[in-house]
Amino acid sequence: MAPTIQWTPDGVVMIDQTRLPREESYVTCRTYLEVADAIKTMVIRGAPAIGVAAAMGMALGALHADPERLDEEIETIGATLAATRPTAVNLFWAIDRMKRLYASLRGQTAGQIRAALVREAQQVYLEDIAINEAIGRHGAALVPDGKTVLTHCNAGALATAGYGTALGVIRAAIAAGKKIDVFADETRPFLQGARLTVWELMQDGIPTKLITDNMAGHFLRSGRIGCVVVGADRIARNGDVANKVGTYSVAVLAKENGVPFYVAAPISTLDLTLDTGDQIPIEQRPASEVTEVFGVRVAPENTQVENPAFDVTPARYVTGIITERGVARAPFEESLPALATLKG
Amino acid sequence: MAPTIQWTPDGVVMIDQTRLPREESYVTCRTYLEVADAIKTMVIRGAPAIGVAAAMGMALGALHADPERLDEEIETIGATLAATRPTAVNLFWAIDRMKRLYASLRGQTAGQIRAALVREAQQVYLEDIAINEAIGRHGAALVPDGKTVLTHCNAGALATAGYGTALGVIRAAIAAGKKIDVFADETRPFLQGARLTVWELMQDGIPTKLITDNMAGHFLRSGRIGCVVVGADRIARNGDVANKVGTYSVAVLAKENGVPFYVAAPISTLDLTLDTGDQIPIEQRPASEVTEVFGVRVAPENTQVENPAFDVTPARYVTGIITERGVARAPFEESLPALATLKG
Repeated sequence: MAPTIQWTPDGVVMIDQTRLPREESYVTCRTYLEVADAIKTMVIRGAPAIGVAAAMGMALGALHADPERLDEEIETIGATLAATRPTAVNLFWAIDRMKRLYASLRGQTAGQIRAALVREAQQVYLEDIAINEAIGRHGAALVPDGKTVLTHCNAGALATAGYGTALGVIRAAIAAGKKIDVFADETRPFLQGARLTVWELMQDGIPTKLITDNMAGHFLRSGRIGCVVVGADRIARNGDVANKVGTYSVAVLAKENGVPFYVAAPISTLDLTLDTGDQIPIEQRPASEVTEVFGVRVAPENTQVENPAFDVTPARYVTGIITERGVARAPFEESLPALATLKG
Repeated sequence: MAPTIQWTPDGVVMIDQTRLPREESYVTCRTYLEVADAIKTMVIRGAPAIGVAAAMGMALGALHADPERLDEEIETIGATLAATRPTAVNLFWAIDRMKRLYASLRGQTAGQIRAALVREAQQVYLEDIAINEAIGRHGAALVPDGKTVLTHCNAGALATAGYGTALGVIRAAIAAGKKIDVFADETRPFLQGARLTVWELMQDGIPTKLITDNMAGHFLRSGRIGCVVVGADRIARNGDVANKVGTYSVAVLAKENGVPFYVAAPISTLDLTLDTGDQIPIEQRPASEVTEVFGVRVAPENTQVENPAFDVTPARYVTGIITERGVARAPFEESLPALATLKG
């Protein structure tokens, strides 16, 4: 599969996720403002991928910044990238990582600083792939053999530098010889499940069926689903998980039917500064995402809409959080900080 | 609002619900086969409306039938209409009612029989409106004042001869002076919520917001929703409810958050021959409903799909079933048969 995002001599190249699966096209961001715009308009999406894009955006911004005013410009670049989307904490994590590196380079030449920031962005990219593969190894054992895995939204290669978090667990389970198939929620309004997860899994030859979001409960009740695996945009200290809207519903329905519900996410998705998920900011997106599908109106003119892009799943519905350092289980207040301070 | 269905000298006229809200157009069915096709292709849908359509289809068929072979033709007409959709029991109820009347007319002239069947079909239509108004009266008291009512699919005027079951309860609550607004689940894949419920409630000036199905849980958790009201396609003796897919999920999420979950349906939706909802046949619809929206593909070519049109909500999630004869509550094994045998 073509990479989700790449650092190239021309700029940051991303597959345009707003056009998949109808069109496989690529966007080249030549400035940090173009990277910010790509994040905002969801050309690239998925918490880990947003983190990689932000790191590359910082490096790209530094490359073109006035060397005389680098301190202020790095601040502006970071603030601009941080203002794109509020929920995924990986965005802020990546910006902070780049700013900390920048602060540590004081006294070096502009050329040295730029080179170090570019190397760091590429390092964030490479680490993300390695992290996803480790998440897959830890998660594969949890997937029941011979059953269906239900996933929501796209937490795949397209949501990361590659391999995927939730879909990485599925790929690793299959690589380990498990006979599983996948049900993908279509994930309205942006249809990441229908457009991205199905596309990505079909490319790997993983047997996948598409269902509408409101069918998930029916199939969880049917006994066919062995486990649910989803990604995350931000996880609070107590284990509450913000993820694509609809995740909460799937988690409640899984628990009601005795089906394990797993969250697969890198340590960078943890926000240990927040006691609970109620403190996580939830992005509200434009009404047109709900009233139009690929530009086709599906509701009357002047329809009023609510469009929260995320919801919060309380920790009590979460069976385990699969990270690159192992699987955290309740009580998450203890297991998550312990994993976070573990050496990677 | 224009009527959903009408008996006219030209035939049975229906508003085409596959084209709303983009186009307000009407279909005239001149034969019972055209009525059967309109039910199958969902030009008309909603359990009570399907019942009215079937009764009118029986009358239309009798009008054009060979008077020498009326017995066989009535059998064929009934069997054809019965084969259109399997889940809504109102379809079979209406066909049986027409056949019972036909059987009682033995010895009368073909002209007398035809006239009686046409009168009966019109009677089914008029009764349905009266039934919905009675459901509204019984249900209005249950709607908490000052909050939002969540509904799924379209159980409105468009799903009935007029006024609606679930939306009839909302209309009656507003007529009784309650200050409520409505959240409408868009109801993928056929988008009855986005296309029909929003359209219908906007025409009545009832404040309505459209949400995607996967947002319902988020708002049920938020405390904003006072109650859920939905329709039904078939209700078993124990109170298990078959309704549009996604209803089960909403019911579980309502219970989890302490929000009352009401089903509004005429007595003709009861199927007391079935002990539990597990015996209700669930219609599987074409994959293209999921992979295309108004003809626009939203998933890759060759995507595999599951598309059950209904699900079953176990009675333990149902706070009450609002009928034209009053509100049934648990134990439904007792309350439902009692209401069914009550004189209307």
